[in-house]
Amino acid sequence: MCPPSCLHALYGSNGRRGFLRQGVTAAAAAALGTQAVPARAAPAPAQPRSFSDVVDLTHPLFEGFPTYGGDKWFSMEPMFKFAKDGLNINRWTLVEHTGTHMDAPLHFSADGHSVADLPIGDLVVPLAVIDISRRAQDDPDASLTPDDVKTWEAAHGPLPDGCCVVMNSGWYKLLNSPKFTGSDGAGNNHTPGFHGETAHMLLGERNAKGIGVDTLSLDTGMQTRGGAFPVHYAWLGSGRWGVEGLTNLDQLPPRGATLVLAGPKVRGGTGGPSRVIALV
Amino acid sequence: MCPPSCLHALYGSNGRRGFLRQGVTAAAAAALGTQAVPARAAPAPAQPRSFSDVVDLTHPLFEGFPTYGGDKWFSMEPMFKFAKDGLNINRWTLVEHTGTHMDAPLHFSADGHSVADLPIGDLVVPLAVIDISRRAQDDPDASLTPDDVKTWEAAHGPLPDGCCVVMNSGWYKLLNSPKFTGSDGAGNNHTPGFHGETAHMLLGERNAKGIGVDTLSLDTGMQTRGGAFPVHYAWLGSGRWGVEGLTNLDQLPPRGATLVLAGPKVRGGTGGPSRVIALV
Repeated sequence: MCPPSCLHALYGSNGRRGFLRQGVTAAAAAALGTQAVPARAAPAPAQPRSFSDVVDLTHPLFEGFPTYGGDKWFSMEPMFKFAKDGLNINRWTLVEHTGTHMDAPLHFSADGHSVADLPIGDLVVPLAVIDISRRAQDDPDASLTPDDVKTWEAAHGPLPDGCCVVMNSGWYKLLNSPKFTGSDGAGNNHTPGFHGETAHMLLGERNAKGIGVDTLSLDTGMQTRGGAFPVHYAWLGSGRWGVEGLTNLDQLPPRGATLVLAGPKVRGGTGGPSRVIALV
Repeated sequence: MCPPSCLHALYGSNGRRGFLRQGVTAAAAAALGTQAVPARAAPAPAQPRSFSDVVDLTHPLFEGFPTYGGDKWFSMEPMFKFAKDGLNINRWTLVEHTGTHMDAPLHFSADGHSVADLPIGDLVVPLAVIDISRRAQDDPDASLTPDDVKTWEAAHGPLPDGCCVVMNSGWYKLLNSPKFTGSDGAGNNHTPGFHGETAHMLLGERNAKGIGVDTLSLDTGMQTRGGAFPVHYAWLGSGRWGVEGLTNLDQLPPRGATLVLAGPKVRGGTGGPSRVIALV
């Protein structure tokens, strides 16, 4: 598989209004055997966006929030208590990739952007929600495929420029079920995610800033075996971001909402628990 | 001073679309010797809001981010490294009230809302920015007074319903200066903030969801002496939220932007490093 440094060169980095460059797109398409689409000549002027409702796509975080390996990745201890001290303050210890959280390019690259480096304009983007929940209900290893993208586009038009593509597998409703992590007790996790080919399709033939899932991993659980993580390496390695553990996806239209990926702005952070909001 | 439980009863809690109730408003006004204004009969239907630009109001967080007492309230250690492990993940330890962060009602009350309990609709609100930077430049103990609110309203109209009122003291430009914490070496901090009377005015006579500052404290540094914190107790004790350590405030119009207070959704959290964004 193309290593991250190769991917970064292949697809280019995704900076502020960093639309794909034509040459890079063509090279990527040629390498992948896919058809190149004309790159946009220049970023369009910002179009006003409007909304009249707000949907919270964030699970509450707590000690014991599920993790693939079963480890406790968030803990909280009181530092001051109101009854004794007149105010409440807690101390937290956490691993960056717990709860509803973002993945920065640095998570799966040697020197990609940290959460603090991503331009704010790249974190407030049009949202496309692709529902694979019916298929996933019977198959926890289901993945969002290039055909799913094409089917969505046939119904709703081309993916919006600079969007975030979110998979709704229905998994967000299973937080309190063993199915949420999908552990089979033999070191494997059976959870839906993006297919590796979909990541390459979006990189080479579309213009998306981010991808998101309502499971714990951008990759299907089975694609993470042995550290493979083809979607993580391809997508984050190209300089783009991901978001995992989304909820309330049934409250969103397939097209038309705006995603606010409000991740923590920690220098050197590879990700972190985030507040993810849809403006509808 | 009226203790938090009294304040909670006096002003009522600020639930979803929790406009002040007329009786409560009158009681508060009577208690404070201020003039009651008619309470809104019912929340207006949500009006569409639009924006064409995004401004990040968040400082990067790092080990050594200034704190009033000089304590280290954020640290990060690597858990996996790309060169050795093929991916990067860090572990953080933090005290909730560091960096650009929110204050939940629970921070200064026995049983107020935690960061996870606040309705999302109360965290995406109209923004009013009141500039006192000229006065604060010569007086680090300057505060945002009721007269500052009235002067702003004379120029820009009544504070928007359900808004966040933000103080721009210019302090956000001083992050790397000793003036940022304003420590005088004798246990006092000289930094601008809201005057206690302004908190009571906003609670009794206006309808605001939150208040924000570009310093480390909603109270002036000097108002925090001896654990007094009159603004914290009044404002947070009433069920409303605050946000501290904002930056980039000169990039905002006095009126017309929308604030997104994207705090961490941690159960029982009294606050936490937040991504704060203005939609302009």
